Order: sequence, then structure tokens, then C-alpha cells
Amino acid sequence: MKFSIQKDYLVQAVQDVMKAVSSRTTIPILTGIKIVATDEGVTLTGSDSDISIESFIPVEEAGDEIVEIERKGSIVLQARYFSEIVKKLPQDIVEIDIQNQLQVVIRSGKAEFNLNGLDAEEYPQLPQVAEENVFSLPADLLKNLIRQTVFAVSTSETRPILTGVNWKIENSELHCIATDSHRLASRKALIAASSSIPEANVVIPGKSLNELSKILDDTTDSVEIVMTEQQILFKMKNILFFSRLLDGNYPDTSRLIPSESKTDILLNSKELLHAIDRASLLAREGRNNVVKFSTIEQGIVEISSDSPEIGKVTEEIQSELIEGEELKISFSAKYMMDALKAIDGPDVRISFTGAMRPFFIQPVDDEKTLQLILPVRTY
Amino acid sequence: MKFSIQKDYLVQAVQDVMKAVSSRTTIPILTGIKIVATDEGVTLTGSDSDISIESFIPVEEAGDEIVEIERKGSIVLQARYFSEIVKKLPQDIVEIDIQNQLQVVIRSGKAEFNLNGLDAEEYPQLPQVAEENVFSLPADLLKNLIRQTVFAVSTSETRPILTGVNWKIENSELHCIATDSHRLASRKALIAASSSIPEANVVIPGKSLNELSKILDDTTDSVEIVMTEQQILFKMKNILFFSRLLDGNYPDTSRLIPSESKTDILLNSKELLHAIDRASLLAREGRNNVVKFSTIEQGIVEISSDSPEIGKVTEEIQSELIEGEELKISFSAKYMMDALKAIDGPDVRISFTGAMRPFFIQPVDDEKTLQLILPVRTY
Repeated sequence: MKFSIQKDYLVQAVQDVMKAVSSRTTIPILTGIKIVATDEGVTLTGSDSDISIESFIPVEEAGDEIVEIERKGSIVLQARYFSEIVKKLPQDIVEIDIQNQLQVVIRSGKAEFNLNGLDAEEYPQLPQVAEENVFSLPADLLKNLIRQTVFAVSTSETRPILTGVNWKIENSELHCIATDSHRLASRKALIAASSSIPEANVVIPGKSLNELSKILDDTTDSVEIVMTEQQILFKMKNILFFSRLLDGNYPDTSRLIPSESKTDILLNSKELLHAIDRASLLAREGRNNVVKFSTIEQGIVEISSDSPEIGKVTEEIQSELIEGEELKISFSAKYMMDALKAIDGPDVRISFTGAMRPFFIQPVDDEKTLQLILPVRTY
Repeated sequence: MKFSIQKDYLVQAVQDVMKAVSSRTTIPILTGIKIVATDEGVTLTGSDSDISIESFIPVEEAGDEIVEIERKGSIVLQARYFSEIVKKLPQDIVEIDIQNQLQVVIRSGKAEFNLNGLDAEEYPQLPQVAEENVFSLPADLLKNLIRQTVFAVSTSETRPILTGVNWKIENSELHCIATDSHRLASRKALIAASSSIPEANVVIPGKSLNELSKILDDTTDSVEIVMTEQQILFKMKNILFFSRLLDGNYPDTSRLIPSESKTDILLNSKELLHAIDRASLLAREGRNNVVKFSTIEQGIVEISSDSPEIGKVTEEIQSELIEGEELKISFSAKYMMDALKAIDGPDVRISFTGAMRPFFIQPVDDEKTLQLILPVRTY
């Protein structure tokens, strides 16, 4: 194998596939990046066996020569060294050359690295994904769907299925749900009409979605999504992102969401977020970061918290509308802040059915996003 | 005590004095910030007993009212909470009000914090520094003197005196020296003529200089420096920075610096820095991050390193001038990179007296800065 390549493209591709490489793998060759040079271009692969990322650098793009292949071939190089080396090379052009089977020379300007490689034949094959259940989403929408749900997955392995986000497709609508059993994030999105949108119900590891999100850009470029029994594949321009799916049935969460409410409050989202943030400054030490929220006269909401040793904080917020019963409730400041950050738009509606029941938050005039939080008993 | 104050000034002053506050102090009241309100303004103090910082916010600055004092007084508030609270307050004006002796109310907009304070009488007095040995330096020069020397102090407490930077004043020249016994950084600066510049020889803890450097801005504003037996005081506009000095005699390092050289090499500083950085990518794993440096034909220097498991790297650099004997030497890549980063100007001269002797690096045409490194035996 021998080729020369524009450094910027190589650095970007290495950075992308590195997101799948873990230093704590039990399969030694997976600490490496596989490099394959063909007549079409250079393909890099990184994997931790849960996530695999393949990045392709074409020989030419928009009339610009990116890679010049002199000799085809393949090799695996230690990801940690290779990624640091390519970033620090002195010139815009990099030459990569296999000498004596597994000895790789990387040249750029007057700098020359000789690295010991591993046999690419030993690198695990990527999963085969049949192109049957395919649909597509714009990259920016996909990124939003992830941002608005993935934070709510469980970080505990007690119920492994809750460490993933449930994706259900029914009637051309994608429904993403995450819960750690103390709060729940739900987001629906219509899938643009196509001849046959598949029905599906899968659970994608939260970690995979977080890594995918880092690769997605904020464009409306279409991302093709292919689902099988055990794998999901996201196809972007020149990048393939594979993730395994979680085994098991995701709990039915639809009954958790109250269908009616006793108190409805409209608030400015930023004002509420900042007040909760301030109240949580003193709450962090004490009982699990819990703040109190209560309606007081004339459409005013009071946020407060206290910690006997440090002091207390109270703040009033003017509500745009309070409908229904009076309310005193306590909840985790962190869950509320996470939920408010995941909601777009200036105003939120919070719907309560009493101090002991889950309550939910939605943007005003948007039913597609819903954040549910279980209160904490303190009053 | 009761006053209202512009939030930005309060946030900045708290941030400055926080640099002296440590959470790991053995004196509980030093986890707090002392606040004193007088007719002239508000003074904040933070201290870990090694470093003390006092920041003064005047009632008025350039015709702008910054503080409005309603009632004089003083209090100590938990630094950690107070600093986070002031940053997150909602409005531009903050009111601080002592109620019932040690109960402090902080108000801004609709937010109200009640904090438990401590008695300011219990807070240790700042050191008394007689204004005898006084000289001054522009802030940007002072910042440079620190940057170019402090990195070379020892991080080990085996010889505590080496954890500080030696400042000597003789004949209106300040000489700053730091060494960890493997390398040495030296920087001289003329002190602008004044009636009586004191002679002095003190050792300032590296940690103090690092914290001071964060407060100094890149202006030519004059900083007054007052030295006593046990303390040094830096007086900036509205900020006093006290540090204790280290006890003991700093070793005489003048004999360490070779007075003649056998090989002199002129190199571009950035080119050398980047080549060493690349060579160190593979050296980090192996023998203590050591790279090899050797002269080869036609004014060319070769930088190399190898690590049997990973591979090797070589790079050639064109020298502008090589004078004297051929040379093969090995040294710590980290020390060389630290030294090169501390040297301003595009080109450096490196003066060697053999592979086993310390060598030194200076900017071309500037004798005020000198970086000395002890080589490592490998050849």
C-alpha cells in the first residue's frame, strides 16, 4: 500500500473514526484504526465492537485531487499514535507507505515516522446490514432528536434496557423515548413521506447516540437510517456509523404520562431555568439537589431551597397564566434544568396533577416534545 | 453593613480574591471571603495564609457610581457559595445587607439569598509590609518574567527552596532564576532608574507567581513591588497581592552555566519546537520522553526518537549555522519544548560543550534570557 493524501481530510477522517475507538477494549486489534486503500480512495475504520465508524476519503472531490493511490493495500495502525501523529505533521501532504509487510512509513515534509502495523486481515468484519428497513432524516433534525432525549437515559446498569433510547416508528412517525425511571424525555417527528416507511421498535444505546451526535453537522443533509434486528446504521456523506441495538423489550411508558392536569402554569423558559439554577446553588449540598416550587397569589410562582448550614434562597417569577388548583411541589433541580434545556421556544407549559404525581413540561403550541419529571416528597 | 454594587465589579473582584482561597485550608475561616464596606468603597479579601489577595472596589470610578454604601460593616461569607451566587444573579445591581448580626441577605431582582456569615473580626490580619524596599515594573514585563522562569521550578518538596523562583536585585537589574536541578531558566531585566533601587535576594513560591500571573493584565500599567524579610507585596490598581517568601538560601547557580561552548547551532525556534513535539509523540512511552539530536552533514540537524514497540521517527532540520564540533546528544523533549516556548523571537542559538555537559539556549541577539538543560546519557 502506498498513497499520498491531503492532511486535512486525513485528520478529519481519523477524528471521526476515533469516536468509536476505546482504549479499554478486550480485543487488542480494536485499539487500532484500519486503513484500506483502493482505486476509489482510502477507507478508515474504528470500532469498539458496540459502535463501528467507517470514513471514506475519495480520490477526488469536486474536481480536487485528495488522494493519489500508488499501490493498493491495507494495514491497522495504533489509533492513539496514528491520530496524534497525523495532527502534528508539518506539511499539507502526507505519504503513507507499507514497507516489509507490516512496517509503515508516514512521511510529511522532512518528518518520517516508522510505525509497526498489524495485519488488516485480523480486523473484525463490520456487521452486514441488509438495506431493507430504510428511511431518512435531515442531519440537523436527527441531532435535535438525540439532544432532546438522550440525556434522560439511565446511567445505571441495573436495568440495561433503560441505558438506551427507544425509537418507535408507526404511521410514518418516529417517536423517541428515554427514561431513567425518575424522568422521561419524549420527542416525536414526522418522517417525510416515501413509498414505504417501515414499522419498527428498537432501543439504541445512549452512548452510541452521543457519539453519533458529535459527527452530525447542523445541515439539512439527509442521513439514511437502516435498521435490522441487532444493528442500526446511519449513512452520512462518506461516513457509515454502525451501532448495535440493546436486547430486550422497552417498557410501555405511555401510561406514565397523565392525560389530564389539575394545575397548568405558563412560564418563560429561560427565567425559570435561571431561577432553578440559582436555587440549586444551595440545594446541591443538601437533600439531593431538590428545590421547592409553589404558586402564590396573583399569578406568581415561588422557587426556593434551603440548606440549614449555608442559608436559603427564594425567588419569585411572574407567570403568564396559572390555571387550576394551588400547588406546592418539590423536584430535582437537575432534572428540571435538563428538561428545560431540551425544550426549544421561549415559553413552556407545566401541567401538574398534584404534588405526588408526575408532571410534564411542553413548549407552548408544540405537542411533539414532552419532558416528564417525578416529584420528590418534601412538603 | 448594607450596600448596593454593580454586579460586574463584584464578580471580577470575587474572581480575583478567589485565586488565594483554598478549600483545603486548616483554618476554617479562610474558606471564606472577607467583605468590608467603608465610606470609600468595598474591600474583598481572600487568603490561604501563603497568598493573600485584597481587591478594592471604590464608591466611584471615572464619574461612574459603582457602590452605594448605606451602612458600613464587615462579614465573612463562604467563598465557594458566594462566588457562584454572584456570578448567577439576575440583575446588574446587587444589594448586600447584614441582618441580625451574621445573617446576610443578597438581593438582585426578584432573587433573594440568605446566607450564614462569619464574624469578620475572626479573619486573620493581612501581613504588615513596611514600604521601604520598593521598585516597580510594567505589568506586561512582570508577566513575561514569570512566564519565562516559573515553569522550571521543582515540583518536588525534597528541596523546598527549589519550588520557588529566586529574585535578585543588583545594580538596578532584576535577575529571576528557577531550577529543578535538571534544567534552569534565567531572565534578567533592567529596572527603570529611580532614586534608590534596593539590593535584594528573595525566593518567591512558584505557586504564588502563577496565581499573580493570572491577575496581571497585558498592559504597561506599573506594578509596585515591596519586599520584606518574609513577604513580597505586588500593588496593582485596586488589588494588593501578598505572598510569603521561602526560607533558606537559594543555591548559587552561576557556575552551572558554561562560559564557553564547543558547538553552536542556530535554528528556527518554531521549526525545532514542532520537530521535537513530533519526535516526542513516540518517546513519551519509552525512556522518560527522551529525544536524540545530532548534527549531520551540510548544516543539517537530525531529531529522532524510537520506541521498540511502536516505531521510530526521524526528522531533519536545516540549520542557519553550525559552528564547532560534531555532536550527538539526548535530552528530555519536555524540557526542550518548555524552554523554547519561554523564548521570544524567531531564532535561537544552542550552545553545547559536549554530549554530557549542560547546554543552553538563548534567543539570537538577546542575552537577557537563558534556558539551560542537562542532557540524558543514551549515546
